[in-house]
Amino acid sequence: MKAYKGYLIDLDGTMYRGTEPIEEAVDFVKKLHERGIPYLFVTNNSSKTPDQVADHLTKFDVPVTNDQVFTTSMATAAFISQEKMDASIYVIGGEGIRQALEEKGMELVTESPDYVVVGLDRDITYEKLALGCLAVRGGAKFISTNGDIAIPTERGLLPGNGSLTSVITVSTQTEPIFIGKPEAIIMEQALAVLGLPKEEVAMIGDNYDTDITAGLNVGMDTIIVHTGVTTKDILMTMEKQPTFSITSLSEWDIL
Amino acid sequence: MKAYKGYLIDLDGTMYRGTEPIEEAVDFVKKLHERGIPYLFVTNNSSKTPDQVADHLTKFDVPVTNDQVFTTSMATAAFISQEKMDASIYVIGGEGIRQALEEKGMELVTESPDYVVVGLDRDITYEKLALGCLAVRGGAKFISTNGDIAIPTERGLLPGNGSLTSVITVSTQTEPIFIGKPEAIIMEQALAVLGLPKEEVAMIGDNYDTDITAGLNVGMDTIIVHTGVTTKDILMTMEKQPTFSITSLSEWDIL
Repeated sequence: MKAYKGYLIDLDGTMYRGTEPIEEAVDFVKKLHERGIPYLFVTNNSSKTPDQVADHLTKFDVPVTNDQVFTTSMATAAFISQEKMDASIYVIGGEGIRQALEEKGMELVTESPDYVVVGLDRDITYEKLALGCLAVRGGAKFISTNGDIAIPTERGLLPGNGSLTSVITVSTQTEPIFIGKPEAIIMEQALAVLGLPKEEVAMIGDNYDTDITAGLNVGMDTIIVHTGVTTKDILMTMEKQPTFSITSLSEWDIL
Repeated sequence: MKAYKGYLIDLDGTMYRGTEPIEEAVDFVKKLHERGIPYLFVTNNSSKTPDQVADHLTKFDVPVTNDQVFTTSMATAAFISQEKMDASIYVIGGEGIRQALEEKGMELVTESPDYVVVGLDRDITYEKLALGCLAVRGGAKFISTNGDIAIPTERGLLPGNGSLTSVITVSTQTEPIFIGKPEAIIMEQALAVLGLPKEEVAMIGDNYDTDITAGLNVGMDTIIVHTGVTTKDILMTMEKQPTFSITSLSEWDIL
């Protein structure tokens, strides 16, 4: 145990599994809320807005406001606005990424953009992908909200944004900049929003390849909780270990 | 020059460029036709039927019947039928691949198929890709008609079938079997249709990476014609050279 001044917390597999809340995690966040310890939910979901994410958590009785949600779409918008003011963007993706970019004053266009941004788009079409390829070949900078290859659903593992992004990667032979976990970019942005130095914050998540690796990549402490993707057996095979490993968040005493 | 008993001939960049015929190539094929030398057009286009391809060539005054067209869809259907009789197939793609599979007696299904076959689909949707991923994860054998990363059009280079295929490759972490050029599979099938041993046939094409490499992969003679993709300068950088290199097919004397 360690007395962290703040927490970055993953959602799917950590706070809930699909439509079921993980009660130990809900109780943990309630304690953080009562003690006034800052926390920020960090998600690779690019298609939902922070409002939608907060509404979902509120249904599970998690104490949360919109400004305690940090999506990879918000990280993408912040990243681009630091690079270029008022950039023009060709975007493939859902409401979350569109709103995040427009809130930063960016213009969404279909031709000759400064950037091509790809987020998960369940209404993907050949024409959308074609416009993305043409823009990247025309010199637009290529950014993807996250590289997740699959999305767990009741039907099984469906295509994630990383696999849709690969159409443009393969066709143009150009690698994108990924923003979401496990990249350091989203973590640096999230720490800035939380307003705490990385030495005083822990990243909590269930997925070694995204949550824990993101924490390791940015050089902050990590707590893996075995309520989701990564089992204890798989964790044992990893060279770099998280700072702490727990079965559920009921084990974590907030010091 | 060499006296070949038959020819395999590429289409785009060899017989025509978009809507424009390449007259030297048309004249060459007319001579083959007059002399009764067998030829077969071999194309990575999976979405057109042989009828549609032959109609297109006939407009350019090329002497051709349907059975002188061999598409990667036909090669795919032949490949699968050699592996398994009456296989069930989940197919992503256009009319060409659907017709080719059905003509071989295969059943097109959406769940629990023996094979997932991906050909270029300009009406691609997330649901189509999702069904493909679920089937491959469920154990279906994964086949792609061709790995072309881009399609030349008047608008520029649009996504080719290889890039659409990558969604399933990346999401399921399963590599497909590619059938079309530059794979040996389509060439072996085409030689079987032509009914001649590979030692007596030449492959003619404009694209080193597909046409010539396909010929090299199957161990047959190749003739590159610089009327399309591969320039003389690029050809010079290649370690393995085609058997012959010509500027246009008017240079080729049929012995």
